[in-house]
Amino acid sequence: MHLFYSRDFSQNNPVLDEKESHHAIHVLRLQRNDSIAISDGAGNLFHGSIQEINKKSCVIHINEQKPLVDNSAKGFHLAVSPTKSIDRMEWMVEKCTELGIGSITFLKSRYSERKEINLAKLEAIAVSAMKQSQRTYMPALFPMIPFTEYIQRSTASIRFIACQHDSLTVDQWIKKTDKTKNNSILIGPEGGFSEEEVILALQKDTQPIALGSYRLRTETAAIAACQLMNHFTV
Amino acid sequence: MHLFYSRDFSQNNPVLDEKESHHAIHVLRLQRNDSIAISDGAGNLFHGSIQEINKKSCVIHINEQKPLVDNSAKGFHLAVSPTKSIDRMEWMVEKCTELGIGSITFLKSRYSERKEINLAKLEAIAVSAMKQSQRTYMPALFPMIPFTEYIQRSTASIRFIACQHDSLTVDQWIKKTDKTKNNSILIGPEGGFSEEEVILALQKDTQPIALGSYRLRTETAAIAACQLMNHFTV
Repeated sequence: MHLFYSRDFSQNNPVLDEKESHHAIHVLRLQRNDSIAISDGAGNLFHGSIQEINKKSCVIHINEQKPLVDNSAKGFHLAVSPTKSIDRMEWMVEKCTELGIGSITFLKSRYSERKEINLAKLEAIAVSAMKQSQRTYMPALFPMIPFTEYIQRSTASIRFIACQHDSLTVDQWIKKTDKTKNNSILIGPEGGFSEEEVILALQKDTQPIALGSYRLRTETAAIAACQLMNHFTV
Repeated sequence: MHLFYSRDFSQNNPVLDEKESHHAIHVLRLQRNDSIAISDGAGNLFHGSIQEINKKSCVIHINEQKPLVDNSAKGFHLAVSPTKSIDRMEWMVEKCTELGIGSITFLKSRYSERKEINLAKLEAIAVSAMKQSQRTYMPALFPMIPFTEYIQRSTASIRFIACQHDSLTVDQWIKKTDKTKNNSILIGPEGGFSEEEVILALQKDTQPIALGSYRLRTETAAIAACQLMNHFTV
């Protein structure tokens, strides 16, 4: 059955937005009363049928909630300073969503060449990846904030930073993760985090970690961290 | 120090090919007697200097072989049926090289829409990823062959196929890998392998495996497998 996503689950009858609605009616040519599967993006899957077809939306009638919960929500939080190439960030969001990430914050850091990010486009990519991999959890994507502000405000219980600073090996930091808590990893841009940024993070209870023996690109480091978190902590 | 790659280590004085030579002389503006680091693509790192600058090549004099060996060579073999979009295969080659893959064979399988692959372009991407991640092992990329031929001819000691067929979980198949042997994983195209292909593989001592609880795209499955192999078996 085709899987759809609705952000609008506030009422009993979720609504498909313009894009999802277009896909249902004009691409798949579904009609009134046709059955669909629908995710609320919070890990829940519902079975329902199309009740009302409007010009730019569809109203769904829910018949059944499946006891299937995507536990990606318990996954981890990535705080990443974006690469210059937005393509690399788009791939990262797609792959991390497929692999089950909890949420992503974009960081404005000293050596990052990209100062803005188009969240709406990245969200559309995440929705598509979520549906494609038959997941029901939609990762939260947070707007870009300065590195120092993130460090001051982060509420993650366990926080790691990928750097060269007496880092814990993968085996060591995996043992320090806790699947019942919020685990977060900070990953720098092409030029890495600055010395001042790393020191600030370490002062605020962030542990320095490595993601392997070799230098990884920003987006590869994010995907590698996501796969390790996914395997060991979910 | 800048890292270069030479395929031509047959003599004592390795030669940089046209592309590597262009990068050294015209981009980095290196000159005769300048020091460089050079990899033979087989896991070995050498320190040397530029001895001779020709129009389309450079001859290097080796001063020292570093006792550093990239053990990716012991990593694993991926046999993958390419996606329709060549972009996705290019990203896969880049990421798998960064994460330390041993070799890749491209498979012509029943449901794969792509019947040809430009190996030269993928090799250039792998060289670039190898240098970027400061590795010295260049994965071997093998030309496309039919699935049935691969299964008949494969000499891998341990062979897995990603499929839905009573598959081993990640924890189960990781235990069956052996870091002293050749481990290989077969990953299908968008439509997966056909029932006949899976049955043929299983008859030839290939074990069915899963790469997680959710459906992954071809290139994501390859990257996830590579990261797991890299972590557990190298």
